[in-house]
Amino acid sequence: MKNVLVLGAGRSASSLIDYLLLHAKSNDWHVRVGDYSLGLAQEKCTESKNSSAFQFDILNEAQRVEEIGKADIVISMLPAKFHPVVAKICTDKGINMVTASYVSDEMKALDKAAEEKDIIILNECGLDPGIDHMSAMKVIDHIRNAGHELTAFESFTGGLLAPSTDDDNPWEYKFTWNPRNVVLAGQGIVKFIQEGNYKYIPYHRLFKRTEQVHIPGYGYFEGYANRDSLKYLDVYGLDGVKTIYRGTFRKPGFCRTWDVFVQLGATDDTYEMEGVGEMTHRQFINSFLSYNPYDTVELKLAHYMSFELDGPEMHRLKWSGVFDDVKVGLDKGTPAQILEHILKKKWTLKPEDKDMIVMWHKFEYLEDGKQREIHSTLVAVGDDMKNTAMSKTVGLPVGIAAKLILEGKIKSKGVKIPIEKEVYTPILKELSEQGFELSEKQVK
Amino acid sequence: MKNVLVLGAGRSASSLIDYLLLHAKSNDWHVRVGDYSLGLAQEKCTESKNSSAFQFDILNEAQRVEEIGKADIVISMLPAKFHPVVAKICTDKGINMVTASYVSDEMKALDKAAEEKDIIILNECGLDPGIDHMSAMKVIDHIRNAGHELTAFESFTGGLLAPSTDDDNPWEYKFTWNPRNVVLAGQGIVKFIQEGNYKYIPYHRLFKRTEQVHIPGYGYFEGYANRDSLKYLDVYGLDGVKTIYRGTFRKPGFCRTWDVFVQLGATDDTYEMEGVGEMTHRQFINSFLSYNPYDTVELKLAHYMSFELDGPEMHRLKWSGVFDDVKVGLDKGTPAQILEHILKKKWTLKPEDKDMIVMWHKFEYLEDGKQREIHSTLVAVGDDMKNTAMSKTVGLPVGIAAKLILEGKIKSKGVKIPIEKEVYTPILKELSEQGFELSEKQVK
Repeated sequence: MKNVLVLGAGRSASSLIDYLLLHAKSNDWHVRVGDYSLGLAQEKCTESKNSSAFQFDILNEAQRVEEIGKADIVISMLPAKFHPVVAKICTDKGINMVTASYVSDEMKALDKAAEEKDIIILNECGLDPGIDHMSAMKVIDHIRNAGHELTAFESFTGGLLAPSTDDDNPWEYKFTWNPRNVVLAGQGIVKFIQEGNYKYIPYHRLFKRTEQVHIPGYGYFEGYANRDSLKYLDVYGLDGVKTIYRGTFRKPGFCRTWDVFVQLGATDDTYEMEGVGEMTHRQFINSFLSYNPYDTVELKLAHYMSFELDGPEMHRLKWSGVFDDVKVGLDKGTPAQILEHILKKKWTLKPEDKDMIVMWHKFEYLEDGKQREIHSTLVAVGDDMKNTAMSKTVGLPVGIAAKLILEGKIKSKGVKIPIEKEVYTPILKELSEQGFELSEKQVK
Repeated sequence: MKNVLVLGAGRSASSLIDYLLLHAKSNDWHVRVGDYSLGLAQEKCTESKNSSAFQFDILNEAQRVEEIGKADIVISMLPAKFHPVVAKICTDKGINMVTASYVSDEMKALDKAAEEKDIIILNECGLDPGIDHMSAMKVIDHIRNAGHELTAFESFTGGLLAPSTDDDNPWEYKFTWNPRNVVLAGQGIVKFIQEGNYKYIPYHRLFKRTEQVHIPGYGYFEGYANRDSLKYLDVYGLDGVKTIYRGTFRKPGFCRTWDVFVQLGATDDTYEMEGVGEMTHRQFINSFLSYNPYDTVELKLAHYMSFELDGPEMHRLKWSGVFDDVKVGLDKGTPAQILEHILKKKWTLKPEDKDMIVMWHKFEYLEDGKQREIHSTLVAVGDDMKNTAMSKTVGLPVGIAAKLILEGKIKSKGVKIPIEKEVYTPILKELSEQGFELSEKQVK
């Protein structure tokens, strides 16, 4: 029997654990699920005799060494900062590991040691990062193996609402993932290359510089640029490509309205505001606007943003309740924490709400001097509030990777991400069997 | 004989050392000037027998302990981060100290120890911080001692060009102080109180939210808000005041044009740009604008900012050479470093250029229920590129404070700033004798 250890049983782990339990009996696995909340771990384990739940505290050194030591593979769904702690023990003891998070410098530093111990620490194996890498590399390898020259690569992913869901919500958006990350999204510098020119966008301009993308059958999406696209030159081996741009999808109109919070400074997470205990939504917004005893907050804001008072942006804002004279309901907080708290009141999924994942790549390349273009698209819709498309597309590739590693079907060793053919081919194959396949279309 | 040790002989120390040397003989002082550049230290010492120059390295522990140990008072004009290193030795050995810099947390932590050793470590004793504290507290104490209620305090300082200087410069501005600080000015959050409301301005809106101030005899100035005004509630004892706002002065039109660099992200100091060695001024600006092979950089920028192509902002930018196709002349750098380097080409003082300091306070208070208002103004013009108004107004109060401490005329002990009557009264008196006096005017 093999022991599969899952650390962290939060929202992102549901589909992963379901997948592992489904395969536990036939593979003779015991799935052990640890979370700081024992209840949460137990909730995920009830349907199988091949599993056990336990209370787990990553800060308890004795416990983490003992639990990891008993495992044949460790899947860490803990907050990303704890992955290196787990990885260090895995490396010491020679135990394989999988995560869905970006490789940190600390993690990267374990590469040699992991290789020497003949293990793989496979990271960035969820949706984004994860399926984006695998599905992009599949097409990139295909273009290159045919001897063609890739000239441009653009890639967007968005966690959205399914079209039927919550149809009076003018943002067409709710929190389907960590709300804090949504509020802070885009902070830091954005870098990309366009037609051979390095381009940089500061945070306070990011949500104004959007791109409109049409996906046949699904309509229009609005993309804004994502962090440092330049690092993918190395990761994907794209040196010399003329355009590289990675971004995030929202529904049209979202970005221009979200920009209000950016322009106000309401997404700032660097300082605590004064008088939060007594603050109303309306006062929160007003504290970023000029003092003026005569004008309404609505007019001041519309003027600040050069919006029409009755336009779609002001409508979205009013719908969110940000002008309401109701207490925020926090004792203290940064602007970002307060904004998250206010938005959660309207942006939390209801039991029947369905989310939707949209991933879209564009590859431009030269075939015998002729411009060619491939689009690659994944659209996945969730079942309900619990079995979200987000949870499935993050959890399934992690689970599949763990199974393949246990079966000895992934030979690669060291600290890795799924960009090698040997790794992405079987994962994409099984994802496609589960209904998650990118459709590739030659458009030119 | 008393030993006065001056650490740091840069631009800011000229007027200070001149002042000390002028008073050295009659007071039986020996003024010892240490700088990392021996030449710089020697240059400042030539006119007196009561002085000596030496090469000084703050990172050399043995040297700093020895030199400080021989002093009766230490004046640190080193970069602010080194003050606590000096202060620690002063505290250990019981030696008084003066700086012109803000009190850091590390410095504040030495308060008790300094008090126990019966010494004063007097900080924030230059212009801003320095003369601003002293001149404000003089009026605030006056209003309070008369039993009136202060309702509003606003204070602005600017390091500018004298009106006669460089009259084809449409910015009416050059670097008269540390250029790096000018480029980074305003980063971080701005907080103040207006009519009892807490207000916050994010960096990317700071240079749009200006206030126009008219100073009779000197014309209009444009003020933008300065960091955290709230901390002055405690420092000045102003709890309950309805408006508190501290700001920086520029000439009208400056802020709207400077905002271009903020909006582009060209003042970002958090990442290094690509391909700096080959970059021209024009490419630097273009790297923050959208890719478009047909439009000029000028048109793209004017559009980005919603400026008229022939308006005053574009004129200022063209005058600065930011659209020129000439190499930047750096091998690497952050946007802020590159911008500083480009602007220095036009914004460096010429030998005959005169700078100008403008400080202005507004106090509103209630006298028997009646609204009263006092304005307090200092305008100082420099002699030339070396003897700037900035150097004098920073250096003189430091020198005067050092003299008063050596004469035993300042009794206060511990880590202090010049907000006590006992400290500010004699310093302001001597500054006024030297021609630097704030004129106070009852305007209501």
